[in-house]
Amino acid sequence: MTETSAAKVTLVDIARLAGVGVGTASRALSNAKNVAPATRERVLRIAEEHQYVVSPEASRLARGNTGRVALVVPHLSRWFFGSVVEGLGDALRGADLDLLLYEVGDSRDRHDFFDRLPARRKVDAVVVVGFQVEDGERDRLATMGVQIVAAGGQSASYPSVHIDDHEASRQAVAHLVHLGHRRIGMLEAVDPDQPGLTSTRSPAYYEVLEAAGLEVDPTLVVSAPWGGEHGAASMSRLLGHREPPTAVFAHSDEVALGAMRTLRRAGLRPGADVSVVGIDDHPMAELTDLTTVRQDPREQGVLAGRLLLGLLDGREPSSLTAPTHLVVRGSTAPPRA
Amino acid sequence: MTETSAAKVTLVDIARLAGVGVGTASRALSNAKNVAPATRERVLRIAEEHQYVVSPEASRLARGNTGRVALVVPHLSRWFFGSVVEGLGDALRGADLDLLLYEVGDSRDRHDFFDRLPARRKVDAVVVVGFQVEDGERDRLATMGVQIVAAGGQSASYPSVHIDDHEASRQAVAHLVHLGHRRIGMLEAVDPDQPGLTSTRSPAYYEVLEAAGLEVDPTLVVSAPWGGEHGAASMSRLLGHREPPTAVFAHSDEVALGAMRTLRRAGLRPGADVSVVGIDDHPMAELTDLTTVRQDPREQGVLAGRLLLGLLDGREPSSLTAPTHLVVRGSTAPPRA
Repeated sequence: MTETSAAKVTLVDIARLAGVGVGTASRALSNAKNVAPATRERVLRIAEEHQYVVSPEASRLARGNTGRVALVVPHLSRWFFGSVVEGLGDALRGADLDLLLYEVGDSRDRHDFFDRLPARRKVDAVVVVGFQVEDGERDRLATMGVQIVAAGGQSASYPSVHIDDHEASRQAVAHLVHLGHRRIGMLEAVDPDQPGLTSTRSPAYYEVLEAAGLEVDPTLVVSAPWGGEHGAASMSRLLGHREPPTAVFAHSDEVALGAMRTLRRAGLRPGADVSVVGIDDHPMAELTDLTTVRQDPREQGVLAGRLLLGLLDGREPSSLTAPTHLVVRGSTAPPRA
Repeated sequence: MTETSAAKVTLVDIARLAGVGVGTASRALSNAKNVAPATRERVLRIAEEHQYVVSPEASRLARGNTGRVALVVPHLSRWFFGSVVEGLGDALRGADLDLLLYEVGDSRDRHDFFDRLPARRKVDAVVVVGFQVEDGERDRLATMGVQIVAAGGQSASYPSVHIDDHEASRQAVAHLVHLGHRRIGMLEAVDPDQPGLTSTRSPAYYEVLEAAGLEVDPTLVVSAPWGGEHGAASMSRLLGHREPPTAVFAHSDEVALGAMRTLRRAGLRPGADVSVVGIDDHPMAELTDLTTVRQDPREQGVLAGRLLLGLLDGREPSSLTAPTHLVVRGSTAPPRA
């Protein structure tokens, strides 16, 4: 049977053949919850036998919305962003919502997205994945008049699912202090597209050192963009210090992995000679014995998806803080005597 | 001005105010190429001033298609798949096509996707990212009556952009042979969801060894699913061999990175004690000094996107083989004397 002839079977036909009303048939086909399992099965079997296909346009008209959600994502090739999107996909697939993907990898793409808002009139909601929306961008999004959720980070005053960056950093730095380190460096990551943004992962470094009565030496803090190569270069700078640190806190695992390469190339062993701790628990952290503060971006995506479904069902906006915890591996150890 | 009142401004109004025909105004707003830059700017400025929004339904009717493409992707959190999708996004954004994302991470999701074909009637084309479509799945896809392209892998007889797996493997194994290794192991990766599928990366291993006059020892080949932890376990098995290999060829960088962790934990140095080569040039390969055969999945995505645009424009189907090349780093060296 071809697509064209199959399309001639209508919802009314299916309902008649199944011996149910059109509303029940429609709900069964759209996987709505208030249909008896036996009825749903009968309707689905008959629809399958007749190769009946729900017209998205018809079902959209029935629901009064688009049935689509826009995901705005900066760097899909990176583990963190890809994982959040995977989780969102899991949470939203069950609700039969389609995901429209908008990548805003560099500042030009991002400007173009917020300028043109290509998702306008196409979606019921927008999920901002892992980046901070600027004031002008927020004003543009507001013109869409749809629900907006932030996943894997806090942004503007949108409902969000995120970790507590301050707490994650505190866990990392406190681990180094507890091991007995007294000279602790920080590899601070910044976003080159938003250079004015102070990292939420930095203040805990200063607070933990001060609370432990340790001197804060600003020459042990190196700022550079996110990414492994930058971490490698920053670690080189610290190794060139007249009195190098015995341990470093890196703002992410990728930055930490770059730092570990620099150590190895300098003939130093991570852990035994210089301790390194990151944040993430990137899949590579386990493969490289990197101590880190674990977060689960996939789970953050799942929770953000559920939060969004609640909003679309008329529930009150809320935000969630996902937990983080220290995972100790071989890259940290007490300082050498 | 609210969304509702803005919607009252029509394309005809914009064209009149800009002093151009309706067709020109439409092309300017849809970023089509055959509009003078000054005209385009004038139309866009007037549309912006009047908060004119192109109705996707109107523009779809004008084009006679959905303006959407479905991406079917197994594991978005993994670098390879995320990178292919990033490249596809880049290529298709310029054409003003929206991307509908369908994740098919495990075999249940995948079965559900091909069973229900939720993308039906919603898209002009389907891109299958990095996995092989089985016979029954191909028959289901065919019922959609749309263009189908495979990106980052060959699948069925669809037009595709992929690397030559046999050539990539040949480059990796030949490198180990040229360094002087005589006992070379293989960490063979298999897909647990498609166990019957013979890896296209395996035959070159046997061919290169035989061509070099080296004995093929089947006990030096360990098969396990893709992924770092499996690579680590497979390397442990090879280290327990009564006569362990001096070098191993891993089917991917993630497998290779797992193998390197096993070596380090056993007190062996990758390169100096046992050589390891992978395939991919994963961002972590550079950070871990892993020798590998480089491919560029992002570029494969871009090329697949262009291939798809050509098909939608009525051009003949074709396939492309993306190049690979050896990148020598510290994880490979001549065998110890």
